[in-house]
Amino acid sequence: MRDWETSISSTGENAEIRGTELSKVMDMPFSDAIYLLLKGEKPSEKESELFNNILSSCIDHGIGNPSTVASRTVQSGGNAMNTSVAAGILALGNKHGGAIEQCMQLLQSQKTPEKIVKQKIEKLEKIPGLGHKIYKDQDPRTQKILEKADKLGLKKENTEKILDIQEEFAKQKTHLALNVDGAIAGTMSDLGFEPELGKGFFIIARTPGLVAHVREEMDEEDFRRIEGKYREE
Amino acid sequence: MRDWETSISSTGENAEIRGTELSKVMDMPFSDAIYLLLKGEKPSEKESELFNNILSSCIDHGIGNPSTVASRTVQSGGNAMNTSVAAGILALGNKHGGAIEQCMQLLQSQKTPEKIVKQKIEKLEKIPGLGHKIYKDQDPRTQKILEKADKLGLKKENTEKILDIQEEFAKQKTHLALNVDGAIAGTMSDLGFEPELGKGFFIIARTPGLVAHVREEMDEEDFRRIEGKYREE
Amino acid sequence: MRDWETSISSTGENAEIRGTELSKVMDMPFSDAIYLLLKGEKPSEKESELFNNILSSCIDHGIGNPSTVASRTVQSGGNAMNTSVAAGILALGNKHGGAIEQCMQLLQSQKTPEKIVKQKIEKLEKIPGLGHKIYKDQDPRTQKILEKADKLGLKKENTEKILDIQEEFAKQKTHLALNVDGAIAGTMSDLGFEPELGKGFFIIARTPGLVAHVREEMDEEDFRRIEGKYREE
Amino acid sequence: MRDWETSISSTGENAEIRGTELSKVMDMPFSDAIYLLLKGEKPSEKESELFNNILSSCIDHGIGNPSTVASRTVQSGGNAMNTSVAAGILALGNKHGGAIEQCMQLLQSQKTPEKIVKQKIEKLEKIPGLGHKIYKDQDPRTQKILEKADKLGLKKENTEKILDIQEEFAKQKTHLALNVDGAIAGTMSDLGFEPELGKGFFIIARTPGLVAHVREEMDEEDFRRIEGKYREE
Repeated sequence: MRDWETSISSTGENAEIRGTELSKVMDMPFSDAIYLLLKGEKPSEKESELFNNILSSCIDHGIGNPSTVASRTVQSGGNAMNTSVAAGILALGNKHGGAIEQCMQLLQSQKTPEKIVKQKIEKLEKIPGLGHKIYKDQDPRTQKILEKADKLGLKKENTEKILDIQEEFAKQKTHLALNVDGAIAGTMSDLGFEPELGKGFFIIARTPGLVAHVREEMDEEDFRRIEGKYREE
Repeated sequence: MRDWETSISSTGENAEIRGTELSKVMDMPFSDAIYLLLKGEKPSEKESELFNNILSSCIDHGIGNPSTVASRTVQSGGNAMNTSVAAGILALGNKHGGAIEQCMQLLQSQKTPEKIVKQKIEKLEKIPGLGHKIYKDQDPRTQKILEKADKLGLKKENTEKILDIQEEFAKQKTHLALNVDGAIAGTMSDLGFEPELGKGFFIIARTPGLVAHVREEMDEEDFRRIEGKYREE
Repeated sequence: MRDWETSISSTGENAEIRGTELSKVMDMPFSDAIYLLLKGEKPSEKESELFNNILSSCIDHGIGNPSTVASRTVQSGGNAMNTSVAAGILALGNKHGGAIEQCMQLLQSQKTPEKIVKQKIEKLEKIPGLGHKIYKDQDPRTQKILEKADKLGLKKENTEKILDIQEEFAKQKTHLALNVDGAIAGTMSDLGFEPELGKGFFIIARTPGLVAHVREEMDEEDFRRIEGKYREE
Repeated sequence: MRDWETSISSTGENAEIRGTELSKVMDMPFSDAIYLLLKGEKPSEKESELFNNILSSCIDHGIGNPSTVASRTVQSGGNAMNTSVAAGILALGNKHGGAIEQCMQLLQSQKTPEKIVKQKIEKLEKIPGLGHKIYKDQDPRTQKILEKADKLGLKKENTEKILDIQEEFAKQKTHLALNVDGAIAGTMSDLGFEPELGKGFFIIARTPGLVAHVREEMDEEDFRRIEGKYREE
């Protein structure tokens, strides 16, 4: 049987998170504790402000997406909170929140915007971070994240690169809006996070939304029981 | 087929979270956005400070607990980040983080500490929130949460009640430490949260830890592949 | 770290399932192997026939139920087969397939049909195994299972008891159809299975259906990609 | 909101599975019902015998593998049967049962054994279906499946191809045992199943084992509660 080891945290009287005493971590804002946990170092005040902005932008987004539907459907089958929230997280696959990681991979690669766009067009593949069903230009969340990064002096090479990719795509093919995944991929890369954490970041940010939806679904079930509106088994 | 409806959030140009524009939510610290999402109102500055303290206290706790083992085991089977994190959340059942909700139920019931302790002793049941394998007195996290609540003027009737239950149990049976679940249950109740959100709160707080462990396990696998230390299938 | 032990099976040259060599288990029909695994003994020929009948009755049941919706929704988020099938199994909570276990608990209790019905009416609770949205009398699956059990001489005290409960409920309140959960609960109890395996049995029987739905959903996604019918993220 | 449609099954008075009345499916052995559900046609008697052999070979395999550990760990956190079984299925990723699908892809590709082996050696990749930690020659399950297929006259081009790949690898590099994944991949391909169902097949076959382990873990927990051997939270 395997012996598990970790460099992330320890328990007991001297419990630590990434080498910082747990008692000190408890005095940090939750978002700073997340940053420390994922990156191994505390954010500066400005990095913290941008990180909060990005996290809060993903916290919930209506009811029609796969993760919310999965969580509420599982809850309607008669389950505990943790079971239903987990089902929603399962739905966060390659096509739901996955563009953040895919875009971070592109941005942190050595390839130039020109080459990235050329290859994607040749392969008939979508460019993660570009395109939106509704918005012709940037969606409001995108714009807000870019403005915040700019204001804080944290809009750096990766965010510039996704904007260059957008421009390059406009030249080679057509104009597409920079979507919120693209803005997050750029700024998270500029904050020094690796692509492998892109999906994990989105999971952390969206879990509160799933908890809220499962809680609402519990009430919904009570209501239907009272009203006699039972679902067909 | 069901038509889903929600009062939690909406999408589109005027996207909102609990009636607050998403663009304003993005300017809130992540912890305040969570508070708003779960409770339907923004925290005061003091409530925010206490809420952060509680969230950060749960963010991770070593590698030997069921949720961490479940996440890392599933990752070792060759899976995506969301699949492995969800497995860890599945492990957060009645016996792992469940004491928060159970203790909140007790505190927010009409029963007196005397009656609660008497009934639990009669039924030979443990009192959620009391008892710890190692610490004879409060564990360090417990103490820190109580001090913070006290300092902020937010230590109210529910926190007093769990302390009364501890005292009453000492009278009727024996002294047991107030554990971190008990401290969280008391302070979360004092902040006005309902018991049904106890487990959800813990899931939100622990998800970053699970993401970090899954990420570390990915590297571990790479290392074993290089070293030729393959697990027996 | 825990050392796992099991009396279910072993690996290696002399691998066994419940004390039977794996090589011999491989010569058994899959349903008999399941029976052996769950019960610790092989079924007689007649028990085997009834067990197959019950298993096959649950294998799939359209697309509108929570487990199918959960599996297909998670698949639509861009996931692997195992992730999507697991989401469907998560949906199989107390209200979806849960009546089998609840009914087995009632049947294997010491309580008489009279007492069971009286208590359920007093508590305003539904009786698991009775009632169906559409069918006024037994649904076709119910009837088929009962006939098979009767023909094989395996309709015994538990199946009689659920029929007595139905009759008693008709006396005390109103006529309700015996549903398929009730027929399964009766016959599985007569085969000697304990209530704790009721949900597990349903999971085993329905998993093939979930696999088929996830596979179909993969094609559906390919179709929508070709047609340009992308889901809104 | 999406309208779900399926060609797999329907509900109601005339419920069907792949166009066969559910009442007739109920008279089929469970394994034949699975075959029908996945492939859209009933197996011949010989196909049925081989299919049972393959299914039963995977039903359980000790306690040290990721799926069993995940299921039992989640159960130890205090969860319902469906939650714990699902966790085990989550563990069945690319590295745990995934070789069946990967090997089926190879066998059903147009590439010759020579080319497959050459490419794998060049890329320093393992060949799915070959190699075993313990057995130098075929493991007992492998041998049994091959013998059964041969006896039934169902050992065809795909099974021959994996044996050719084994031989070719011995020529170009070294002798490796054909493992059970390779034998299943070959025979399942010969039965006409597509690679996309390889993992689904293994999930169906292993789910009974996971149910048995979760059930055993429930007793284990009861035992530890009685003995006072509580796990550290």
